[in-house]
Amino acid sequence: MSQARSSRPRRPQARGERFDPHVPGVEYGVLDELVGYAIRRAQILIYEDFLAALAPWDITPQRFSALTLIAANAGLKSTELARILGIARSGAVQLVDQLEALGYVARTESAGDRRAYCLALTPAGRRAHAQITNAVCAHDERISARLDEGERRRLIELLGRLG
Amino acid sequence: MSQARSSRPRRPQARGERFDPHVPGVEYGVLDELVGYAIRRAQILIYEDFLAALAPWDITPQRFSALTLIAANAGLKSTELARILGIARSGAVQLVDQLEALGYVARTESAGDRRAYCLALTPAGRRAHAQITNAVCAHDERISARLDEGERRRLIELLGRLG
Repeated sequence: MSQARSSRPRRPQARGERFDPHVPGVEYGVLDELVGYAIRRAQILIYEDFLAALAPWDITPQRFSALTLIAANAGLKSTELARILGIARSGAVQLVDQLEALGYVARTESAGDRRAYCLALTPAGRRAHAQITNAVCAHDERISARLDEGERRRLIELLGRLG
Repeated sequence: MSQARSSRPRRPQARGERFDPHVPGVEYGVLDELVGYAIRRAQILIYEDFLAALAPWDITPQRFSALTLIAANAGLKSTELARILGIARSGAVQLVDQLEALGYVARTESAGDRRAYCLALTPAGRRAHAQITNAVCAHDERISARLDEGERRRLIELLGRLG
């Protein structure tokens, strides 16, 4: 499993510090007025909670997205995974390597193209994915606990109109 | 300047593909219902537009945040920058190295602690920061162009209640 463990630099949480989106005494200037920086702040808080909640499975947000997409789309290839996730192809190959090392994903040769591999969850991957999905949904509810259901849907809708 | 240019893996945009948050024919399963994944989708779209808009200055979102915080907080240290941005201390040192290589930031010895350096914008950094801020504000308005001003403020407020 150590192979699959990604080498992330030590974020504040790894040093026992919780990220404070508004550090007292700090002037944020124009950052406070930008949608982009509001998203960045939220993303750091969410990422910290996600990693802590999913540590038992050594799962990052990207690994969870990949597992979910592989589970839901039969015969998915790593090039398609890269496109869907908006990551580099080399990144998708590395991601699949990690999920393979965890025993969750298997590559099978594509019938049409011998150079391409189709991705599928292993039986262990399917069992883990069910548990992981429950943990991720609990995490997502926790990080949006200060929003009611209408506000939560509104937030997703507004985010969907960006870009 | 090549020193300061960060080595990012080739994202889809670098291959001439625009990120599609809803690729036709793909089943996203539970991802469509998660605040976390909605933020991830928005973040990729925003990041692509940001890099394209700020390419003339070789500025990433993190570099812009650092410049803005250094400009607004006299005597800021790189450890404080790490804490504010929620990144690793080594990451903040690297970030300051890059901004120094671009000629935008200078380290000056701290009066109280000879091991710590205070960060400040150079005159060139101040001029660049003014132009960069205009470009970032234009980018932020562009990515939220499908929201009116009330919706934009509402989005920032809802994001601020996450975590």
